[in-house]
Amino acid sequence: TVDGDRLWDSLMEMARIGPGVAGGNNRQTVTDEDGEGRALFQRWCEAAGCSMGLDQMGNMFARREGSDPEALPVYVGSHLDTQPTGGKYDGVLGVLGGLEILRTLNDLDIRTRHPIVVTNWTNEEGTRFAPAMLASGVFAGVHAQDWAYDREDHDGKKFGDELARIGWKGEEEVGARKMHAFFELHIEQGPILEAEGKDIGVVTHGQGLSWTQVTVTGKESHTGSTPMPMRKNAGLGMARILDKVDEIAWSHKPDAVGAAGHIEVFPNSRNVIPGKAVFTVDFRSPELAVIEDMEARLRKEAQAICDEMGLEVAFEKVGGFDPVTFDEGCVTAVRAAAERLGYSHRDIISGAGHDACWINRVAPTAMVMCPCVDGLSHNEAEEISKAWAKAGADVLLHAVVETARI
Amino acid sequence: TVDGDRLWDSLMEMARIGPGVAGGNNRQTVTDEDGEGRALFQRWCEAAGCSMGLDQMGNMFARREGSDPEALPVYVGSHLDTQPTGGKYDGVLGVLGGLEILRTLNDLDIRTRHPIVVTNWTNEEGTRFAPAMLASGVFAGVHAQDWAYDREDHDGKKFGDELARIGWKGEEEVGARKMHAFFELHIEQGPILEAEGKDIGVVTHGQGLSWTQVTVTGKESHTGSTPMPMRKNAGLGMARILDKVDEIAWSHKPDAVGAAGHIEVFPNSRNVIPGKAVFTVDFRSPELAVIEDMEARLRKEAQAICDEMGLEVAFEKVGGFDPVTFDEGCVTAVRAAAERLGYSHRDIISGAGHDACWINRVAPTAMVMCPCVDGLSHNEAEEISKAWAKAGADVLLHAVVETARI
Ligand SMILES: NC(=O)NCCC(=O)O
Ligand SMILES: NC(=O)NCCC(=O)O
Repeated sequence: TVDGDRLWDSLMEMARIGPGVAGGNNRQTVTDEDGEGRALFQRWCEAAGCSMGLDQMGNMFARREGSDPEALPVYVGSHLDTQPTGGKYDGVLGVLGGLEILRTLNDLDIRTRHPIVVTNWTNEEGTRFAPAMLASGVFAGVHAQDWAYDREDHDGKKFGDELARIGWKGEEEVGARKMHAFFELHIEQGPILEAEGKDIGVVTHGQGLSWTQVTVTGKESHTGSTPMPMRKNAGLGMARILDKVDEIAWSHKPDAVGAAGHIEVFPNSRNVIPGKAVFTVDFRSPELAVIEDMEARLRKEAQAICDEMGLEVAFEKVGGFDPVTFDEGCVTAVRAAAERLGYSHRDIISGAGHDACWINRVAPTAMVMCPCVDGLSHNEAEEISKAWAKAGADVLLHAVVETARI
Repeated sequence: TVDGDRLWDSLMEMARIGPGVAGGNNRQTVTDEDGEGRALFQRWCEAAGCSMGLDQMGNMFARREGSDPEALPVYVGSHLDTQPTGGKYDGVLGVLGGLEILRTLNDLDIRTRHPIVVTNWTNEEGTRFAPAMLASGVFAGVHAQDWAYDREDHDGKKFGDELARIGWKGEEEVGARKMHAFFELHIEQGPILEAEGKDIGVVTHGQGLSWTQVTVTGKESHTGSTPMPMRKNAGLGMARILDKVDEIAWSHKPDAVGAAGHIEVFPNSRNVIPGKAVFTVDFRSPELAVIEDMEARLRKEAQAICDEMGLEVAFEKVGGFDPVTFDEGCVTAVRAAAERLGYSHRDIISGAGHDACWINRVAPTAMVMCPCVDGLSHNEAEEISKAWAKAGADVLLHAVVETARI
């Protein structure tokens, strides 16, 4: 099993880079802080005897050689970028858990037949540049690389330019690597494992996601001197649509969730009736048909609300993926590892999206989950215990070594 | 009567400073552009033979001497600052209309008994630094000057520091000047005069205003993995309150208006349930009791919505003024001027707040309004005709000269 203290110390050291304002992290993708986190990870990997690969999307690949020069590597990893007000574990546990596996194998002087490669996927969170899981999506052939480079942040900066600016744009062709398998360790980000007192979630499926950016257009005018009947208040139209989003998600209870995390009005002045409102609706479900139904109802209901209010509305799909079924062999390896190690476990569906959801398209893939306190994530107060982290990394170690063979 | 072409040319020349993106202006208060606009106005005033005073709030006072050294000046003016997506006339017409009066008196070689002072009041719009009419409020003793200096913009910059930075913080004590009377020419910013085909609005009253900043606090969490029943969605709470604001304003039809122009959620990430929402509710009515009722209902209804959703809510009053009754003598002078000049006119209540609303507390005050196309203002597409501008300035000229005596 792994060294839980060493893993924890690395987590805490990484968390010093890009500190948040409330104990968590703000180490958003392709910022200077992201660059610092990458450099630390690289130093650690090199100290563990790995070579480091870097592709044109900034994806990092720390390789520990295997005994069979013909064997495809087993990949493990997740992401080091965080939300603007993110936790210390979301993504980071999966990368540093991967590193901890290599350190443990070094300690035990174990050589696997297949090489093991620990990856840090660029821009998993998707906050600064939508969509989420951008670089693993390019790797899996879901997105074109040029399209990814052209994604813009709130200030109009392009993803590709920022990646070059921080010095982490590599030469290697994206997606050229072939994988024997991919495993991702991640915190659950939901309340189920903790509530049921389980150490490990064996992730069999991932929910699907749909991000629809909605633009409501009204007419900017004075909040004081514009009579009520003459108003075209885009902010009010948005408010009514947001209430509908909630109603639509509840109507599919318990198989769906829905909310808007991104909301903006223009010109955002106290005495100007908003002439434009832009917001992104996030709908998720393990059932593709449910997602499609929610998307269709959003468009229909929003159109009806706007028609009645004399507003215009437009929709753009800015992210999404279909529900995922992970590879049976890999899932079995995870379940068997938990069993062998004596950790309590249950099968679980991932509520969040993960790089593993894209990599699943190009390699046999599975995920290991560990609990987090109160199911809280995407919050600086995100917390896990050292024992949970160790259990997750132990299961990851066994599933990976089982797959990579000794 | 004034020279309508000269007035129009000056309006167009000022509009070249701080151009907007759609034909209007972005010349927000105490920005570099505001500084440029001030410098142009000063050059014009000096060319018209005026001396220029500048007080510690950046209020500008261009003085044309009268014949009686004992007589208090008659003041005219408005503001040169604009909304972020503002029009070319809101405020500017009142300042340059004042300048046009002086130019006309120069042309006709008329000397009034009382001096005439044309003012540019700092930060009327209140977008960058709330509240609106900040500097005229300090002048009238409504706000403390240090409190005004400490107002912060969205980036945390302070009003006082920015005023010094652009070089327009004067030495003169604010509010020390005594006025014989104050007149403000302004576009209506509403649809009444145009709809009724009137050239001039004789402003007898001003609506009162209340700005309440509402902060809803929930819990940041993941949009995908947080089950619907565990969510504390501050953005959804805000949406429901915004709908209530509309309902409350309509319930006092036709004597009230209500909306929110300023809306923000935090951390504003597509896959984070908003943990905080901040927005400013703008309620207005000519009746103080109606404003008070709307404020009270907002607090009660918002509290009930948030209680039901497990959210917290806090309220802060960030701006406001009571309904205003302008000075009978000054109002009569405006009405008589319109009558004498043969312009069609009607009495009107100002829907917007104006510097005149504060100055009315320390000097006999009235306003002249002219129509604007479709009642549209706080929009780059704000438009007036040259004839409307001339009529307004003609009436201003006659009301001022009548009051300043020849
Ligand atoms: N794990 C995680 O938070 N991923 C971000 C993408 C998503 O919103 O699900
Ligand atoms: N006239 C004008 O737009 N003033 C700004 C203050 C207000 O919101 O009424």
